Amino acid sequence: MYTIITISREFGSGGRTIAKKVAEALNIPVYDNELLTQIAKESGMSETFVERKADGTSLSNLVARSLSGLGGYAQLTVEDYLWQMQRKVILELASKGPCIIVGRCADYILKDKFDCLRVFIYADEEKRAQRILHEYDEKDDMPIEKRIKEKDKRRSAFYNYHTDMVWGMPHNYHMCLDSGKLGFKKCVEMICNGYTM
Amino acid sequence: MYTIITISREFGSGGRTIAKKVAEALNIPVYDNELLTQIAKESGMSETFVERKADGTSLSNLVARSLSGLGGYAQLTVEDYLWQMQRKVILELASKGPCIIVGRCADYILKDKFDCLRVFIYADEEKRAQRILHEYDEKDDMPIEKRIKEKDKRRSAFYNYHTDMVWGMPHNYHMCLDSGKLGFKKCVEMICNGYTM
Repeated sequence: MYTIITISREFGSGGRTIAKKVAEALNIPVYDNELLTQIAKESGMSETFVERKADGTSLSNLVARSLSGLGGYAQLTVEDYLWQMQRKVILELASKGPCIIVGRCADYILKDKFDCLRVFIYADEEKRAQRILHEYDEKDDMPIEKRIKEKDKRRSAFYNYHTDMVWGMPHNYHMCLDSGKLGFKKCVEMICNGYTM
Repeated sequence: MYTIITISREFGSGGRTIAKKVAEALNIPVYDNELLTQIAKESGMSETFVERKADGTSLSNLVARSLSGLGGYAQLTVEDYLWQMQRKVILELASKGPCIIVGRCADYILKDKFDCLRVFIYADEEKRAQRILHEYDEKDDMPIEKRIKEKDKRRSAFYNYHTDMVWGMPHNYHMCLDSGKLGFKKCVEMICNGYTM
């Protein structure tokens, strides 16, 4: 029996970077944008479109209706269709062997189906703002505090809608780590420690 | 500059046991019932009384009123008076050097005054029920699930009242660890790892 690590994270907390370092340390694959690419290929939509949708942004009802007949999910909206695709891909990836999956409600999707170590990475807003401004190569006119709130709101809404649970509540996870206080290195060590139970 | 470890915990999660093991590993003192004893001595009330009060149970208003003039806090209820005593003792203990303080809103009391590593220990109800039935030498007719809910409710209400924050929310802590999934040994290792930052 092997274990899948799922990592949920607040925007700017470094969850994705930490996931990659854990993957390197444990020598197992990590899926994030790679996963999105695969979803895009399966669903036959453009990667950019899926990337936006997977973050929980909404299309107009018109577009949603026009696309909702794709792939046999005639009664579903585009959101529902993408959720089904996403779920399928995550289950397939997990069935291949130990790996790390970042975001996309993987913790919920794999629950009771695979042995999972569920991790939530967060940090205070100040630390996240510093990191986003320093690390991310994104141009945006929106003030950083507003961007953090918007992104977290979207992730939270996406998670809460699909899981009927509340994003970021400790009982959904096995470890919640403040990457701002602990630092990335300690977070990686702790996840690796928790993994080899 | 030294660090204080504060440990908040759900009833039956083993937070106190974990705290003791961390204290042994780091060779620093841990305060829990010891702290209560000291509060009792300072406030001049019996230890048993303080023990009940510190858990957030309520006295009748009559008793509260009759005692509310103690120690110069003429306008305060017994709850408020005990809170003041508790706060004072926690600040005094923390000022003596590195230590671990379990419960009693120490995370909130020491915030912005001392460098703290704030930890929350939890576990699913099934694991906690097993542990309480197996480990605790307490006799109680109340079903175990109800006792867990009652105890957590009291701890939560006590914390929320005194801190204006919500008990068990990740952002109040630096590490939240599921002792049921991770096991006590791993929790101790992770806290020690986080402590030596």
